[in-house]
Amino acid sequence: MATPQDPRAAFTLGVCYYPEHWPRDRWPGYARRMRELGLTYVRIAEFAWSRMEPRHGEWDWGWLDDAIETLAAENLKVVLCTPTATPPAWLIRAHPEILPVDAEGRTRNFGSRKHYDHASPVYRAHSSRITEAIAARYGEHPAVVGWQTDNEFGCHSTTRSYGPASRDAFRVWLAERYGTTEALNEAWGNAFWSQEYGDFSEIDPPNLTVTDPNPSHVLDFARFASDTVATFQEEQVAILRRLSPGRWVTHNFMMHFGEFDHYRAAECLDFATWDSYPLGQVERFATSEVEKLRWARTGQPDLISFNHDLYRGLFAGGNRGFWVMEQGAGQVNWAPSNPLPARGAVALWTAQARAHGADVVSYFRWRAATVAQELMHSGLLRHDETLDRGGEEVAALEIVGLPNEPVRAPVALLHDYESLWAYDEQPHSAGADYWGQLMLFYSVLRALGVDVDVRHPEHDITGYRLVVAPALQLVGEERAHRLTELARTTPLVVGPRTAYRTPTGRVHEDGQPGPLRGLLGLSMRNFDGLRPGLTVRVGAHEVVTWAESYALRGGEATHTYDNGPLVGEPAVVRHGAATTIGAWSPTLITEVFTGLLAEAGVPTTPLLDGVRVARRGGMETWLNFNETPVTLPDGSTLGPVSFEQQRT
Amino acid sequence: MATPQDPRAAFTLGVCYYPEHWPRDRWPGYARRMRELGLTYVRIAEFAWSRMEPRHGEWDWGWLDDAIETLAAENLKVVLCTPTATPPAWLIRAHPEILPVDAEGRTRNFGSRKHYDHASPVYRAHSSRITEAIAARYGEHPAVVGWQTDNEFGCHSTTRSYGPASRDAFRVWLAERYGTTEALNEAWGNAFWSQEYGDFSEIDPPNLTVTDPNPSHVLDFARFASDTVATFQEEQVAILRRLSPGRWVTHNFMMHFGEFDHYRAAECLDFATWDSYPLGQVERFATSEVEKLRWARTGQPDLISFNHDLYRGLFAGGNRGFWVMEQGAGQVNWAPSNPLPARGAVALWTAQARAHGADVVSYFRWRAATVAQELMHSGLLRHDETLDRGGEEVAALEIVGLPNEPVRAPVALLHDYESLWAYDEQPHSAGADYWGQLMLFYSVLRALGVDVDVRHPEHDITGYRLVVAPALQLVGEERAHRLTELARTTPLVVGPRTAYRTPTGRVHEDGQPGPLRGLLGLSMRNFDGLRPGLTVRVGAHEVVTWAESYALRGGEATHTYDNGPLVGEPAVVRHGAATTIGAWSPTLITEVFTGLLAEAGVPTTPLLDGVRVARRGGMETWLNFNETPVTLPDGSTLGPVSFEQQRT
Amino acid sequence: MATPQDPRAAFTLGVCYYPEHWPRDRWPGYARRMRELGLTYVRIAEFAWSRMEPRHGEWDWGWLDDAIETLAAENLKVVLCTPTATPPAWLIRAHPEILPVDAEGRTRNFGSRKHYDHASPVYRAHSSRITEAIAARYGEHPAVVGWQTDNEFGCHSTTRSYGPASRDAFRVWLAERYGTTEALNEAWGNAFWSQEYGDFSEIDPPNLTVTDPNPSHVLDFARFASDTVATFQEEQVAILRRLSPGRWVTHNFMMHFGEFDHYRAAECLDFATWDSYPLGQVERFATSEVEKLRWARTGQPDLISFNHDLYRGLFAGGNRGFWVMEQGAGQVNWAPSNPLPARGAVALWTAQARAHGADVVSYFRWRAATVAQELMHSGLLRHDETLDRGGEEVAALEIVGLPNEPVRAPVALLHDYESLWAYDEQPHSAGADYWGQLMLFYSVLRALGVDVDVRHPEHDITGYRLVVAPALQLVGEERAHRLTELARTTPLVVGPRTAYRTPTGRVHEDGQPGPLRGLLGLSMRNFDGLRPGLTVRVGAHEVVTWAESYALRGGEATHTYDNGPLVGEPAVVRHGAATTIGAWSPTLITEVFTGLLAEAGVPTTPLLDGVRVARRGGMETWLNFNETPVTLPDGSTLGPVSFEQQRT
Repeated sequence: MATPQDPRAAFTLGVCYYPEHWPRDRWPGYARRMRELGLTYVRIAEFAWSRMEPRHGEWDWGWLDDAIETLAAENLKVVLCTPTATPPAWLIRAHPEILPVDAEGRTRNFGSRKHYDHASPVYRAHSSRITEAIAARYGEHPAVVGWQTDNEFGCHSTTRSYGPASRDAFRVWLAERYGTTEALNEAWGNAFWSQEYGDFSEIDPPNLTVTDPNPSHVLDFARFASDTVATFQEEQVAILRRLSPGRWVTHNFMMHFGEFDHYRAAECLDFATWDSYPLGQVERFATSEVEKLRWARTGQPDLISFNHDLYRGLFAGGNRGFWVMEQGAGQVNWAPSNPLPARGAVALWTAQARAHGADVVSYFRWRAATVAQELMHSGLLRHDETLDRGGEEVAALEIVGLPNEPVRAPVALLHDYESLWAYDEQPHSAGADYWGQLMLFYSVLRALGVDVDVRHPEHDITGYRLVVAPALQLVGEERAHRLTELARTTPLVVGPRTAYRTPTGRVHEDGQPGPLRGLLGLSMRNFDGLRPGLTVRVGAHEVVTWAESYALRGGEATHTYDNGPLVGEPAVVRHGAATTIGAWSPTLITEVFTGLLAEAGVPTTPLLDGVRVARRGGMETWLNFNETPVTLPDGSTLGPVSFEQQRT
Repeated sequence: MATPQDPRAAFTLGVCYYPEHWPRDRWPGYARRMRELGLTYVRIAEFAWSRMEPRHGEWDWGWLDDAIETLAAENLKVVLCTPTATPPAWLIRAHPEILPVDAEGRTRNFGSRKHYDHASPVYRAHSSRITEAIAARYGEHPAVVGWQTDNEFGCHSTTRSYGPASRDAFRVWLAERYGTTEALNEAWGNAFWSQEYGDFSEIDPPNLTVTDPNPSHVLDFARFASDTVATFQEEQVAILRRLSPGRWVTHNFMMHFGEFDHYRAAECLDFATWDSYPLGQVERFATSEVEKLRWARTGQPDLISFNHDLYRGLFAGGNRGFWVMEQGAGQVNWAPSNPLPARGAVALWTAQARAHGADVVSYFRWRAATVAQELMHSGLLRHDETLDRGGEEVAALEIVGLPNEPVRAPVALLHDYESLWAYDEQPHSAGADYWGQLMLFYSVLRALGVDVDVRHPEHDITGYRLVVAPALQLVGEERAHRLTELARTTPLVVGPRTAYRTPTGRVHEDGQPGPLRGLLGLSMRNFDGLRPGLTVRVGAHEVVTWAESYALRGGEATHTYDNGPLVGEPAVVRHGAATTIGAWSPTLITEVFTGLLAEAGVPTTPLLDGVRVARRGGMETWLNFNETPVTLPDGSTLGPVSFEQQRT
Repeated sequence: MATPQDPRAAFTLGVCYYPEHWPRDRWPGYARRMRELGLTYVRIAEFAWSRMEPRHGEWDWGWLDDAIETLAAENLKVVLCTPTATPPAWLIRAHPEILPVDAEGRTRNFGSRKHYDHASPVYRAHSSRITEAIAARYGEHPAVVGWQTDNEFGCHSTTRSYGPASRDAFRVWLAERYGTTEALNEAWGNAFWSQEYGDFSEIDPPNLTVTDPNPSHVLDFARFASDTVATFQEEQVAILRRLSPGRWVTHNFMMHFGEFDHYRAAECLDFATWDSYPLGQVERFATSEVEKLRWARTGQPDLISFNHDLYRGLFAGGNRGFWVMEQGAGQVNWAPSNPLPARGAVALWTAQARAHGADVVSYFRWRAATVAQELMHSGLLRHDETLDRGGEEVAALEIVGLPNEPVRAPVALLHDYESLWAYDEQPHSAGADYWGQLMLFYSVLRALGVDVDVRHPEHDITGYRLVVAPALQLVGEERAHRLTELARTTPLVVGPRTAYRTPTGRVHEDGQPGPLRGLLGLSMRNFDGLRPGLTVRVGAHEVVTWAESYALRGGEATHTYDNGPLVGEPAVVRHGAATTIGAWSPTLITEVFTGLLAEAGVPTTPLLDGVRVARRGGMETWLNFNETPVTLPDGSTLGPVSFEQQRT
């Protein structure tokens, strides 16, 4: 397997480029301007299947040969893509059974992208065929340094398809997992509502049910779809390994995307990349209109950095370097509203990425498209080929060439997609979602100036000063054992609903936290879904969205509820190295963390809103996401939407 | 037919229990704890079809034999259910034509519950078959005292199905009702938009039309679907009567559920029961965010009590005792947000039910489910088998054993489902819905401390001091005659849009109020749909949502509009014993009622917001739904979320 | 072709009437009362197909013969309709392939109206057949003076159908337009995302795609559907011309309806009519809750007058007289809320229509329907046949008989539907829609007391003092040439995103404004989609929703941005006769227009909110849409919701 050492040598830049969108006479000039702008990597051939194979079995490589040579001539390094995100019209019309089916039962048609059910055996055969073809031709081309598979798995809700291809594969997957329907019925609790199955062929995807489907059914369908995406990619990667030796393989993931298990999907990759569009993403993921407006021109700093921290840490052994494969450098076109970034934001995002461990930041896209779906999206060049505002900021960047040292954070935040699926299937209270709860804890740590690794609970989580598990809803015996072992050496904090469920999505027969009862020294008494506007208090702290209370089983209550139905009952419980926080309250969590971090010897610095700090190697990067200047803890001033690097 | 005398002896408690969800070794202990908690009735076998008949024709009764014996051993009385709300997978896969089709044309799939079109002849045959089987086995078991049919008819919008089974049955139903398409065309006014039919086979359910369907078409489809649910039940009841002599039969209805005619559906029952979940229901039925927040932890008192008053009065001859078959005793899991009840709320709800005429209150459910769709729902026991907060309140109740005396209210509120269907098909103004208008009048009466019976206009409505018809939109000659006769002896108040339509949903050719013109002494001039924010005034009273004015035809205007397009025109008209109120204004209605009740000799006591009183037999129950203490009219103090009973 | 001279003689009134809804014994009295009320025209036979042809080929004309004679006996002039908006049940059941399919893929069923795909060859044959039949029978009847085709083309989103009939016709349309798929691929930019087609049979309508479809695909589908409506109508008109010589033909269009090209559809007509429902339309088109409440009882004056100005100017040669074919005269029934008009509003709307060039105002409808979908809608008569409030205002009107002089406005506003389609497919910022941008400029002109013609850019646009093009997003070489020629003689103002696209929906390769660069003296630098709450400033002016900035290419910046990402960059550019305004700001646009109109010698008078003035012939009509009196510029007082005419 290739290793990602090469890109880690020094921090460099790249760009996403679609030569097939432009006349050939523009290509040499573009390559020259890329080099002049200081770019090193150019990603091409994404989505270009219909140009490679205009009709079934009829190949046209000439244009791509030329495109690669033109880039190579300027010493640019080429990242090639498998173009499988866009099967051509001729393929879909010959095999409409490839098309995905949405949860409403509608077949999703050709005419944009990602129109395939990953479980379709027909599509898998064609996906392998086109991968073989491109890898055979360019796998050993000296300018080609690496590969991206497909594009943004799952984008546009395509992870899960509800048609015959996925249905049939789901039945096989279930039969393999459970062996018998008796075992499945027990795992899912199908005695409830007579949901018992007598044969695997009776089981459908969990859509269009009269009322909510069984959450265990949903959980297994999520697992199945996630595995299907992973094996779809693995088939491509095996071909690339065979035909393109010495090159790395990656995939470009997305922000806060929860439909598949990214840890599983990344296993076959050399390193991860992700696509960062801070403005579109703040419109999509910020939790209130106030927040969306507050960060409309800069993005919300923790939303961005969390994803850096996540993709850095996807691998069992620990952090690796990562890329931002697509870094937005101006307005996007896909959010409900698409403002311009503030001046300085593109540089700020680039510096933030580097500070969180990115080895390469690659901008999307070279020149703004003059055709089709993305013609309102920005590029480094405007439609008229002048350098756009983002391009000007890239040209002025002074951080290229800095060493790509590893990030070493004192705190680990545990995260897993199975808990997300279980959590979001039954949120119980408006606003109580998985990402919301995870980000509540993450942001408190970041606002205290603490660096954080995001880690899967089954990966290596040793060596930290503190481990935080905000929302591990699924905890079986094995996971409970790991956490209990960990807590022998490392302080552990867990959040609400921890270990509410078994791995099949049932509730533990002895209730939350099931096998963690001994470690946490408590059992859950009641949870309270706080509707919008409804709050309770823990001392001076206001609690929103969720409150749960505990019966003490050896633990000690450090905070109790001061009003509401849970008055007098424990909200926070300490039991040796383990602390349980049951209330959604940023100020309460800040208070608890401040104490625990001090105990653990992790220094904290309360930061102003919109100010963040991140450490990589011997360098500290201070970031100001405010559109006004701020005074830093050392008394210096940091200008609006800007950053500053200090040796530590 | 069995009579409901037995359960009326004394006020008792019950519980809903699913032994099939728990290991058998838990059963004896559960039965013992039920008895110790003071419970008398246990409802079982709801939804358990797949356990009774795991494969077609293959019966397994052993577990149910044991379950019943275990309960009987503790002297608990068993209520059995026909498990028809959950046809098993083997049946659906063999006969997918059973599945219902929603208004969007999508087949609703297996995987939860209530996945059947009540009109399906195949399903009806199986529904009778399983009913026969369970009734044959347990119909004369000494521990079995009564039956519940199916579960919550219509839940999850299942009353109306739009697929072939209902379509075909609808055509037959129409042919029987009208005889000829000419008669149907006339009844529906199908000359409008060339909607005339030449053959009954041309008529479909009224869904997926290009724009609004004909309201008469919708009205008849609602009637058809309502009748279909009723006959579906009647087939079961006939079997139960035959095979289970001496036992009563009931059904568990829902709050504010309007899809079928509950009077019609109850005809074959001994008494009615309903499922009361005050917190989920306030999220669903309260009319503003302010109200939802105000009552988030207690429920809205009138929403709850109205349904008690309704289900008590479903029968032609007058009030009967009723049960709350499922009383929520903690958080539910199905509203957008699901807070915990305030301390005291479970006891308060139980006392309120008793005060409004309940003979039995039965809690949902014994132990919180550890599996499947309802695993976030509370039970009397927590997941870990400790007694939950609601269970503690049940244990402390002191009202068990009080005599189940009848309720006798001085005022009747008229209500019918056909008016609801007509009203809500064409609301004309945002917020102007049937329940809203009905509850406007009901709440004014309750806030004056007046007890109210809810009655169908074709049932016995004699003997009251005052009869109120807030929203009788459908009034034909016969109904008009009854009301006119009634008004010879009883003062009558009617609300906006009374008698706007004929029984087929047309407007009377002489306009509103058609055949009530003589009685009411007016004809409608204009109605004004007041959009949100738009108000008019009647004296000091603010009118929202709806205002209509009248031309006097013998009546006398007691109130006129003071501004707006209807300025100077009558808003309230008195004509002998009949009073018409045309404006949505709680304070105006309060003023009118205060006068009329005084005339009628009904004492009134203006109550504080959140305070209510209800009388049953010789006892007055004062209820405080506020989370703060209040002072009652007699100067005593009633604590937060609590009740007090006084002999009168 | 007949000419519209006849109706222009003097301002007259009419009514929409459905004799088939009423017993025949009512007909003579109705005709008499129509005459007494001062009505001249009566439109009948709309929707009456099932009465004309109860079964296929079986005709019943007797009732219609009588209906016409009854009206003629009172000297009323009859407008007949082709009843094609309502194909009868027998036709649909015999040919279900006529039914339209919505964008979600659902077949839209019989049971209301407009249930047909205009592209269906089967339906076209029947549409011609019924048109032939009615025209043959009444085409030369002396009482019949003109024809209305169908009813409200496109109402209920029926312009575009997504089923087989439209799909097949779309492929043929594309093949005719492009000749080869290579040409189509180039025009649409299908290299993007491998969207290239190898055969026209591979192309579907642009619905149910996984994510947004190609905007060029959408644009051509909009064109196709628009053409299909036009040819559907042309087939009818050709028949009417042949069989009903000397009669005019028109169609009743709707407010702000953008699904088809009204200029194209009107080509075969003698003049245009439209259906004005100011209250329903303010609920639908006003841009905020505040505005909806502000105008809930009067309608928003500019929304109404814009449509008068539009339908007056649909023809290549310039203004023609027009009718309001359906003028709401009371509450409608189809908006979310349907308030009563303020007293005086019906008269005010009539006077406004006349002042803007209407020759006839015809009220909807004679008597309020007592059946079916519209039984909550008002008529001139109430259900009980008394004259309703609107009818009383009609009876009191004193403007009937005034001369139908032409309107001559000093300013033309350019408008085209292709720009609308392109704009609204990719709005890029919440609230940035085509009508919003057009009305922003229109309202500023009206608030300055300036009369405005609405004109298509390819029609005659000479002779104006100022031409304003608020939103010409599609500009090719030809259109650019016309505008450049125009600017030699006439000052021109253009708005944001002008000439962003080529006629196939691509962006110009040299960016906005492509071929207008020379004329406007600028090129676009950046656009900024201002999310709700986000604003920037240009001097004292606040900019919302949209801001774009320019690089100067010969032009001069008259206004620049004062903050935000575009700070210091031009917001308004003047280049000789051409002025470009890039910011959504009513006050900024007012400032620019005030200057330009003064230069152009057009007098301006800033009007109070809700006050408008319109000039026709030698008469100036002042209109007060406020519910309070106002003082006019001449010091006189105008009462609430009223008008005043002054000779000029």
